[in-house]
Amino acid sequence: MIRWIQYGVIAGVACLAGAAGLTFALAAPPVGTTAAVEFTPDGKLKKPDGYRNWVSVGAVVTPNDLNDGEAAFPEFHSVYMDPESFAHYEKTGEFRDGTVMIKELIGVGAKEATSGKGYFMGDFRGLEASIKDSKRFKDEPGSWAYFSFGHKYPLKAEATKQAAASCNACHPTSVTRRRQQRM
Amino acid sequence: MIRWIQYGVIAGVACLAGAAGLTFALAAPPVGTTAAVEFTPDGKLKKPDGYRNWVSVGAVVTPNDLNDGEAAFPEFHSVYMDPESFAHYEKTGEFRDGTVMIKELIGVGAKEATSGKGYFMGDFRGLEASIKDSKRFKDEPGSWAYFSFGHKYPLKAEATKQAAASCNACHPTSVTRRRQQRM
Repeated sequence: MIRWIQYGVIAGVACLAGAAGLTFALAAPPVGTTAAVEFTPDGKLKKPDGYRNWVSVGAVVTPNDLNDGEAAFPEFHSVYMDPESFAHYEKTGEFRDGTVMIKELIGVGAKEATSGKGYFMGDFRGLEASIKDSKRFKDEPGSWAYFSFGHKYPLKAEATKQAAASCNACHPTSVTRRRQQRM
Repeated sequence: MIRWIQYGVIAGVACLAGAAGLTFALAAPPVGTTAAVEFTPDGKLKKPDGYRNWVSVGAVVTPNDLNDGEAAFPEFHSVYMDPESFAHYEKTGEFRDGTVMIKELIGVGAKEATSGKGYFMGDFRGLEASIKDSKRFKDEPGSWAYFSFGHKYPLKAEATKQAAASCNACHPTSVTRRRQQRM
């Protein structure tokens, strides 16, 4: 059961692509603790590779036809975690420093098959990531940062960090959750 | 895209649990080529372990509310393949001898979240497997055999092979597909 818990907390929905106007230090990029992905010298996240072989932590579907045609993500959200961080999470219930979660957006390809009516995965539509890194993202709530490689193909090769405030509206971390509880 | 192709062909829907009256040779169990799972001496499949760390090949949801309350599988079907067989499939487009696919049935846990209305995974409900093994299942269409560990918890520790005919109705293999085309 533990596998799905994290999904509700961290990966329920990510920022809308391109929502942010960002600033970060070009001159002195922080050295992070994340090993599962790579950053450019100026702090952009390179599009990860091989994540489809990581640990699948769950999938949801939020189709347009259940959201008045205006779903923020009218697709399956298929979520992966890097295997070393998942092993740590499974053992401790904690997201270790360096945890990377990937959300791949996959269109609804069909609504009926031999197994009945429902929602069936179609084509790949978008890619997003959330990363916990206490060095690189020490100023972010819970040290989590959010990235989007776009919501259509071809995906961007690099992604800048999105505005934490817009992400944390849907992705409350333990820090923001504590803040919310105090309000 | 290749990732989803196999799902439609092999794993769209499995046999209903307990549909079969089976016979198999107790005295001389075949020695199979499957390494990712274990069989009992009398040919039953032991409930696999660690499959949630295998390669996720996709998920679908066929909920009761879209099937007049009578879905055969009113859940998410979350499908995994053993990593070595997936690497072979990714390279060649073929299911190698020894391929194991696992279908985990996961209930609909919620229908609304911060990301909108939809279907969100809940609790684990059932477990099934399909295995291609030209030695152990040489008499089955395409050498594929189907197993169910049940559709409620606790799952069975061992599963007997199901009747191929009932499985192949929804799981046409290349062999049965060719047969169908000839009819």
